[in-house]
Amino acid sequence: MDDRELLTVVMGIVGKENCLDDCAEVPCGDQVMVVTTDMLHRTTDFVEGMSTWQIGWMSAAVTLSDIASMGAEPKYLLMAVGLDAWPDLAGIMKGAQDCCTMFGAAIIGGDIDRHGELTIVTTGLGLVDKSSIVRRTGAQPGDLVCVTGIPGQAQAYLDGYLQFKKALFEPQPRVKEGLLLARGGVSAMMDDSDGVALSLFDLLSVNECGFSLDSTKLPVPSGIPADQARELALYGGGDYELIFTLPPHRHPVDSVAYSVIGTATWEKTVLIDGSPVEKRGYQHRWE
Amino acid sequence: MDDRELLTVVMGIVGKENCLDDCAEVPCGDQVMVVTTDMLHRTTDFVEGMSTWQIGWMSAAVTLSDIASMGAEPKYLLMAVGLDAWPDLAGIMKGAQDCCTMFGAAIIGGDIDRHGELTIVTTGLGLVDKSSIVRRTGAQPGDLVCVTGIPGQAQAYLDGYLQFKKALFEPQPRVKEGLLLARGGVSAMMDDSDGVALSLFDLLSVNECGFSLDSTKLPVPSGIPADQARELALYGGGDYELIFTLPPHRHPVDSVAYSVIGTATWEKTVLIDGSPVEKRGYQHRWE
Repeated sequence: MDDRELLTVVMGIVGKENCLDDCAEVPCGDQVMVVTTDMLHRTTDFVEGMSTWQIGWMSAAVTLSDIASMGAEPKYLLMAVGLDAWPDLAGIMKGAQDCCTMFGAAIIGGDIDRHGELTIVTTGLGLVDKSSIVRRTGAQPGDLVCVTGIPGQAQAYLDGYLQFKKALFEPQPRVKEGLLLARGGVSAMMDDSDGVALSLFDLLSVNECGFSLDSTKLPVPSGIPADQARELALYGGGDYELIFTLPPHRHPVDSVAYSVIGTATWEKTVLIDGSPVEKRGYQHRWE
Repeated sequence: MDDRELLTVVMGIVGKENCLDDCAEVPCGDQVMVVTTDMLHRTTDFVEGMSTWQIGWMSAAVTLSDIASMGAEPKYLLMAVGLDAWPDLAGIMKGAQDCCTMFGAAIIGGDIDRHGELTIVTTGLGLVDKSSIVRRTGAQPGDLVCVTGIPGQAQAYLDGYLQFKKALFEPQPRVKEGLLLARGGVSAMMDDSDGVALSLFDLLSVNECGFSLDSTKLPVPSGIPADQARELALYGGGDYELIFTLPPHRHPVDSVAYSVIGTATWEKTVLIDGSPVEKRGYQHRWE
């Protein structure tokens, strides 16, 4: 059993419509408030060598990234912190606070608890105009498939390429890019935190189209043998880039750096250079 | 170091104003959205013998109680669930869903994770008119001090009075009462989850008044020797009653069952029958 199978259990109880996107949506005056929550903890998320400041930063960043992927502006963060050592608290809060400040949000509440394993749950709230909100649904055959930045760098660090430490330890949520892309007319968007391949399969599952990538257009981490670099860019997790589809007539979106890596297809498959992409990436597995 | 000392560390980083109430406040059209997050986990919160359904119910209830204590209407819940055994998920979600349905809220999102210790973080969102919101501040000398229900029952179960199992295992957030009390003009309110005594000290720390209780008016769990029953009602944790202050001319508030247990005083102390109440109750402690 993996994350996505467990999600079907939840869908059966709370309804499929509450499980589809990076954020939930709540009406808020003339706008939409998007809300998302993420659990991170020592054994699976906080890599050996991270400072408390980096742990706090990452905890905020992953949630701000979910907000960015809806084309929304992050506004507020709540932090539930389960500490195994209370002196860690100040560094964690400072890291989260600095990340929020950098991307226009504020920490407005939380909970502190003692825990056998350092566990942090961040809940983020953002605002977006109804007309600008972007979801995972909305991709159309013929749309361009695009990604910001260079996927695979976080996993590259874990595979021994230590020059990519910052990508993994201090992820930069694509907040500015998300806002500009939403206004620029992208048709569907999510972040690629589980990897480009798995993200495309997530988009496949909720859209009436497939995706065909061109490996020569896929940006890959530099300084790594080509085969391994492509493997990292497709299947590596831990990045927080935006992956999105864009109607061709809306390309290019001004002031955003992104790569066009393929097109959306009528055929409901995920291909690269005409061959199937494997459905794998970062997933928790359950025995 | 205890919970309240750790909170001062957080206040120094994110600002005191973000740490004062049961919920944070966010503008939402003509209303205020209140937001709160709570972390619960196996070793400190889920008592031996609880079913997965009860664990889910309690996880939702504690957060709905925070919303009720602001006089707000619970609307939405997000659940981050760290599972040590995946078959627990369905029962937990069903319990949380049933609690939400009972009190007018809906589960709209969440996160699932694998964890060495069952850990659930619920984030609740509620709505309230600006004119009706109730905070911990606002108590005035001369106000009546009141509490809903019978405090001490959850702790009574832990002390061996097994007839109070439901109070601990399936807490009932005072949602209807919170709404009616807010409209009825209460001046300050919070829930008593850490005990009546500690809640009064929390109110003491943010108001310009103290509190004087009359032990003959304090409702106590029945069927327990009087001294022990009083001890439980004052210092027991795990209840989710509302404790509030009420200007005398607004008493009684229609359609709400509550007890007047004392008055707010000019002197900044917490007394019962003229003697000091001890500053203790349910607190995590850190060595």
